[in-house]
Amino acid sequence: MNMYNIIQKKRDGGALTEEEIRYFVSAYTSGEIPDYQAAALLMTFFFNGLLEDEIYAMTWAMRDSGEQVDLSSIEGTKVDKHSTGGVGDKTTFIVAPLAAACGTPVAKMSGRGLGFTGGTIDKMESIPGMRTSLEISEFVDLIRRNSMAITGQTGHVAPADKKIYALRDATATVDNLGLIASSVMSKKLSSGSDAFVLDVKCGNGAFMETAADAKALGRLMVDIGRAAGKKTVALVTDMEQPLGYAVGNTIEVIEAIETLKGRGAEDITELSLELCAYMLLAGGKASSREEGRAAAEAALRSGAGLEKFRDFVRSQGGDPGIVDDYSMFPAAMFSEEIKAERSACITGLTAREIGIASREAGAGRLAKDDEIDLAAGIMLKKKTGEWANKGETLAVVCGNNEYKVKNAAVRVRDAFSMGNKTPSIRKLVRAVID
Amino acid sequence: MNMYNIIQKKRDGGALTEEEIRYFVSAYTSGEIPDYQAAALLMTFFFNGLLEDEIYAMTWAMRDSGEQVDLSSIEGTKVDKHSTGGVGDKTTFIVAPLAAACGTPVAKMSGRGLGFTGGTIDKMESIPGMRTSLEISEFVDLIRRNSMAITGQTGHVAPADKKIYALRDATATVDNLGLIASSVMSKKLSSGSDAFVLDVKCGNGAFMETAADAKALGRLMVDIGRAAGKKTVALVTDMEQPLGYAVGNTIEVIEAIETLKGRGAEDITELSLELCAYMLLAGGKASSREEGRAAAEAALRSGAGLEKFRDFVRSQGGDPGIVDDYSMFPAAMFSEEIKAERSACITGLTAREIGIASREAGAGRLAKDDEIDLAAGIMLKKKTGEWANKGETLAVVCGNNEYKVKNAAVRVRDAFSMGNKTPSIRKLVRAVID
Repeated sequence: MNMYNIIQKKRDGGALTEEEIRYFVSAYTSGEIPDYQAAALLMTFFFNGLLEDEIYAMTWAMRDSGEQVDLSSIEGTKVDKHSTGGVGDKTTFIVAPLAAACGTPVAKMSGRGLGFTGGTIDKMESIPGMRTSLEISEFVDLIRRNSMAITGQTGHVAPADKKIYALRDATATVDNLGLIASSVMSKKLSSGSDAFVLDVKCGNGAFMETAADAKALGRLMVDIGRAAGKKTVALVTDMEQPLGYAVGNTIEVIEAIETLKGRGAEDITELSLELCAYMLLAGGKASSREEGRAAAEAALRSGAGLEKFRDFVRSQGGDPGIVDDYSMFPAAMFSEEIKAERSACITGLTAREIGIASREAGAGRLAKDDEIDLAAGIMLKKKTGEWANKGETLAVVCGNNEYKVKNAAVRVRDAFSMGNKTPSIRKLVRAVID
Repeated sequence: MNMYNIIQKKRDGGALTEEEIRYFVSAYTSGEIPDYQAAALLMTFFFNGLLEDEIYAMTWAMRDSGEQVDLSSIEGTKVDKHSTGGVGDKTTFIVAPLAAACGTPVAKMSGRGLGFTGGTIDKMESIPGMRTSLEISEFVDLIRRNSMAITGQTGHVAPADKKIYALRDATATVDNLGLIASSVMSKKLSSGSDAFVLDVKCGNGAFMETAADAKALGRLMVDIGRAAGKKTVALVTDMEQPLGYAVGNTIEVIEAIETLKGRGAEDITELSLELCAYMLLAGGKASSREEGRAAAEAALRSGAGLEKFRDFVRSQGGDPGIVDDYSMFPAAMFSEEIKAERSACITGLTAREIGIASREAGAGRLAKDDEIDLAAGIMLKKKTGEWANKGETLAVVCGNNEYKVKNAAVRVRDAFSMGNKTPSIRKLVRAVID
């Protein structure tokens, strides 16, 4: 095998064989192939796209580059839920306990990542004492005992994806459906679950802005999951405005707990129940989406989901008292209110701008080593379609850096569009791909 | 300036500004931009092509990355002849003395390069004692005194081109007209001449296989030369079969001397006179191509060209006696004759295959550090359109490695097509671009 010939073949529109792709992935990961040849190949992928078989081969090669978590000792169908990332998306903390309460084991490996807020792992760390880097053996043990666990991804899982992603990130080759799908699925498939429910966000606050792109990505990921012999379903969901009212880390965990208490906002509650319904269906604990939905609603209503969340916190070293006493969370020293300048209807609230403001306030990272202010974020008081009287609070920006908070507040103000016509609200679940 | 944004802009079909291209070239050359980002950008060039202004900017930036030879102290219009490379092309050793004998100073900087045979500098080194790495001051001095000099390119000339070319060579991004044209012209423009006659080869033995591609490349290079304020003309010339009868290093120099003695093959003599005619025209020593041609013919006939060649050899440390005594050249220990298996006409002789056979015999390099066997090569005895009786010699392969010589001989045999119909011979000069 010769990397030059592989680049040339793909450059000229040829189809790479599984052997060629496996060679590229393994020899690049081992350092035998230099960065510049890998970068050239990635750019040919960008221009010529990846064929279905090439996407599968990339996924298998990246999956096989590292450790495979073995969950076979845990009874039942283990289900993982994955979101492609949006603004205010705290559903993991709601759906994992709900599904676990309904008897479906949830084994969630998650990342930190760059973004508008921290990743699931960062958000978890706003619960004092929570351990987020479990040994695989303890991860497996907790799922067996508690039906759920959430841990940070170890460096041993899909190291090829990690190295290739970093290169894509530096060479403008991230925006490619085949590379995105194989990157996500290589990690998912390494993490040992039997079934996957994928939440593919679409809208200005998501990586995929159009429904068409989001559907194409969902289709690809579902096909990969199936080809690997795993039950996989994707929901394409709206990300035009933030999900729920809290955008940050601490405040998102609090909103998740509130939702588990039955006091959540309509959109976050609805999406969580729907995702959980599909998790139960995929996990074989329901024979239809409707049955799954009914079970999820019951677990929410009965407080079984909230109890499971308490168990989860306790089992990973956190104080479960936090569920009842939010003052135990990190607090923000500064806050800034944004008030309505006139009485009007909120006709739009741009998720992307709220996301950027959240990062500006300190809640997210631009670079891998940036520190996160767990208490920073944006608490929305009004969302699209709601009415605000002049002087009423639209949102509160909080954080521990006064300058950043004030700065972010300017952007939050601009994220609101006000008018007299009641806007139409986009459907939350745009498509289901199975 | 941010390299990521530059890659993304070009990837998405945008036009890079001169500032962006200058930033890329200088920051890459200095090591500030890593190889992988440069490789990604080069691949976007491959897919989206370079706009005219981008090609100019690349050329100026690479030219300005290093030393600029100053020939202004030499009287007259200094002319350089450059060939894009073919099989059996020894015209430099003929046209430089002819043009110099006609009063046009020729300042030739040349490379070694990878290829079927050595480059001009390697060929020159088959003349015992020849110095091929002149200091710039001596180079200038020799041209002033002798009207011509040939030296290897110093590392100080267009170092950006050198670094970028090496990366293109490793990332399958060589085949791009804009990059080829800017690479050639950045070096030419650094070497200080006032006018350029470009010989763009086309055919199976050349980099550009089709006349259309060769014309497009010629057009681009002429436009760049003009934009830099230099007289520039390009001849698109045939490279379907080798030029002349000798393919190698030593044997090519001997064929050049024979040509200067008036005993050269028709094609090599014709092309040399034509190139020289355009050099005299560009150098202002002729007012038309026809006048230039007549002067070149006169210099050939009178032996003035041969005398200039003797001066050239002497001035750069070689023994001019070599012109009359070819036994002073390096000799080959082994040779292998290829004979006609039946009486027939040569209907085709593939330049590319002869070129590869020449390299296999030891005359060329595949890698930068490969050593060249100066005595190795292929002496053709028959070319396309000639008749061979059964048992007559078609070619002789020679060299100092018996195994390589035998190996190359097999390929040489296959390069000949024999038949009963007299083939039509392609025109030598296919187009003139000015």
